[in-house]
Amino acid sequence: MRNVRINEGRLWDSIMEMAEIGKTAKGGSCRLALTDEDKAGRDLFKRWCEEAGCQVTVDELGNMFARRPGNATTRAPVGTGSHLDTQPTGGKFDGIFGVLAGLEVVRTLNDHGIETDAPIEVINWTNEEGTRFAPAMLASGVFAGLFDVEYAQNREDESGKTLGDELDRIGYRGEERCGDHPLSALFEAHIEQGPILEDHGDTIGVVNGGQGQRWYNVTVTGRDSHTGTTPMAHRKDALIAASMLVQGVEDIALSHAPNAVATVGALVVSPNSRNTIPGQVELTVDLRNPDDDALRSMAEALTQLVERTQTERGVEIDADEIWYCPPVKFDERCVQSVRSATESLGFESREMVSGAGHDACNVAGVVPTAMIFVPCEGGLSHNEEENATAADLGAGCNVLLHAMLDAANAP
Amino acid sequence: MRNVRINEGRLWDSIMEMAEIGKTAKGGSCRLALTDEDKAGRDLFKRWCEEAGCQVTVDELGNMFARRPGNATTRAPVGTGSHLDTQPTGGKFDGIFGVLAGLEVVRTLNDHGIETDAPIEVINWTNEEGTRFAPAMLASGVFAGLFDVEYAQNREDESGKTLGDELDRIGYRGEERCGDHPLSALFEAHIEQGPILEDHGDTIGVVNGGQGQRWYNVTVTGRDSHTGTTPMAHRKDALIAASMLVQGVEDIALSHAPNAVATVGALVVSPNSRNTIPGQVELTVDLRNPDDDALRSMAEALTQLVERTQTERGVEIDADEIWYCPPVKFDERCVQSVRSATESLGFESREMVSGAGHDACNVAGVVPTAMIFVPCEGGLSHNEEENATAADLGAGCNVLLHAMLDAANAP
Repeated sequence: MRNVRINEGRLWDSIMEMAEIGKTAKGGSCRLALTDEDKAGRDLFKRWCEEAGCQVTVDELGNMFARRPGNATTRAPVGTGSHLDTQPTGGKFDGIFGVLAGLEVVRTLNDHGIETDAPIEVINWTNEEGTRFAPAMLASGVFAGLFDVEYAQNREDESGKTLGDELDRIGYRGEERCGDHPLSALFEAHIEQGPILEDHGDTIGVVNGGQGQRWYNVTVTGRDSHTGTTPMAHRKDALIAASMLVQGVEDIALSHAPNAVATVGALVVSPNSRNTIPGQVELTVDLRNPDDDALRSMAEALTQLVERTQTERGVEIDADEIWYCPPVKFDERCVQSVRSATESLGFESREMVSGAGHDACNVAGVVPTAMIFVPCEGGLSHNEEENATAADLGAGCNVLLHAMLDAANAP
Repeated sequence: MRNVRINEGRLWDSIMEMAEIGKTAKGGSCRLALTDEDKAGRDLFKRWCEEAGCQVTVDELGNMFARRPGNATTRAPVGTGSHLDTQPTGGKFDGIFGVLAGLEVVRTLNDHGIETDAPIEVINWTNEEGTRFAPAMLASGVFAGLFDVEYAQNREDESGKTLGDELDRIGYRGEERCGDHPLSALFEAHIEQGPILEDHGDTIGVVNGGQGQRWYNVTVTGRDSHTGTTPMAHRKDALIAASMLVQGVEDIALSHAPNAVATVGALVVSPNSRNTIPGQVELTVDLRNPDDDALRSMAEALTQLVERTQTERGVEIDADEIWYCPPVKFDERCVQSVRSATESLGFESREMVSGAGHDACNVAGVVPTAMIFVPCEGGLSHNEEENATAADLGAGCNVLLHAMLDAANAP
């Protein structure tokens, strides 16, 4: 069994076939959650799983579970999966690789007639991206008890359609209660979405946890006035104050190096007119650190930055922490399964923390979990040009295979 | 004639009556150029002028000229005016004061049976604000030979309607060729739209010119990437670079004190997502200085700022100068008429330069011109809360009356 390898070409071809659904001009994919394209992706995945002998069940939030039976009828399945939905201008690999790597594990086990003690399940989590229905990782969040089912079903897209109605429309609202689905372990394979593996020439990231995150909405209020007639000393320019925050947020990350990241990703100016001094700016702050104490220290530095900027620029700044997610530590036994598989397969690897949020980070709260990263070109993701090599994806899938075998056959 | 005064209450009431057309929730006005509201404002102005014995003509761009005849049939009229169109959330005074102050001058001359040598004309310029049809001060620009008539008539609003079609629709496309309308002098009364008069306790601004302006569109191109997975050292964050430009633009003004102003008024982030590092930022820069050499030095400083920021942050910055308007110097004889009127009326006053662009700044290129400013509350303009006192407006109108009498009766 140690010498079994997945079929790298078949995995690649499946990823490419899935990418045809919602294919974009620049070679990416657009399959927003619960659209017709998402339905088509789900249907294809379901057909493939059934052709591979799996039984596919769907829970009340559309999460799909494709089960390959095990010999031990009393053992909960070892799961793996990710998501088939994409960003509006998403790539071919983010999420999709994790789902289809699971399918490839099943197909490989079938090819070699390998039976496992625990069943194997391949999972497609609903609405991971959060672009159509905010927040992200919604259905895995309900699965892990972080949100209520009703909250999730009532999420609306921009046109006012609810997630629940859209599940009905595409025929993917199942009967099973979300979360009422035992798993003995969960592994998620994913492209890194960052440059670390590529930079170090590593093939596998053994992911032992996820960064903690604190998200803020910040409003800077100055005073609108005419650019031509308002002397510099009379101005309360909200954009200048905001630009000090933008730079200060970078400084917070740099002063908590090397593991901290901090970003102002969105910034909206009002009235945003060429000849009016900006009266208001709304911006977001995203602070991340794998260490909770360091993350708290970053939050304190943000508070000081806000106060300092307020005083210095004579504007009002309101900073509202809208989300706090403590660092996630993955299950040591699951991480060890990934580590052992990586070592026995002989891949260059490094232990790392996930910078992004993933369904696995949610589920880790209720199921022993670990993740496997593979490099992606230039660290680029959430982009139609997202790319990864068939060899790296195959390597990640082989690690997944052996980690799952380890977990499914463990005594 | 030296003791004649305008009727302050009547001027105020006319301004308030005009403000009812397109009245907004917070007490301002919305009469975008050539909308039904603009037509209603024009119709009211026309009726008032005709009731005051004026003949109203309209040129091919909808500029309205209400003429009170003079005794000297060979002399070109002394004009005054401004605009009746407003910003979307505009105030009651910007532009409107200048038009209705002209009407009040005519009414006052009628009350006292005063005849003038040159005719008196009250003008309403089309599309001064430029909010519906860019650019601003469009019809006075054609009048002064800065733009072609066809260019102006083909300007489109957001829905694709042209200025020419909208002139036809509201019935304000006249026969007279735009610019084919001799004036011997032009005076424009306006609220200051800035805080200088109020700060110094002055009632009248004797405006001897307008600032030069240089406008830029700037694009900063970095690289989109994931906020969680991209280490700080790997980032090309376009927003951090843009924030350095925002602060650098302020520094340019401060290093050219006291007369320089410089502003980033509009800034748009792309993709503007909380968890994506900004890959592109577009922003505007507005540099102004009453001295052309100093304005050129500011432009050079901007070029250096752009180069420095590019190098320092590893982004590409493209800065495109889209408009250059040299400083305007008003006609010394017209300015003297304003100065003398102010002095003989006994108002506290100061000589100043207009920070904003006005129709008078355009027309100054082809007609001897000057402007009269009155204070507005807190220097606030382009805002529904724009305010001015009846006394200050009346003072400005009295200065206008006597400056126009001086020009119309000059030998």
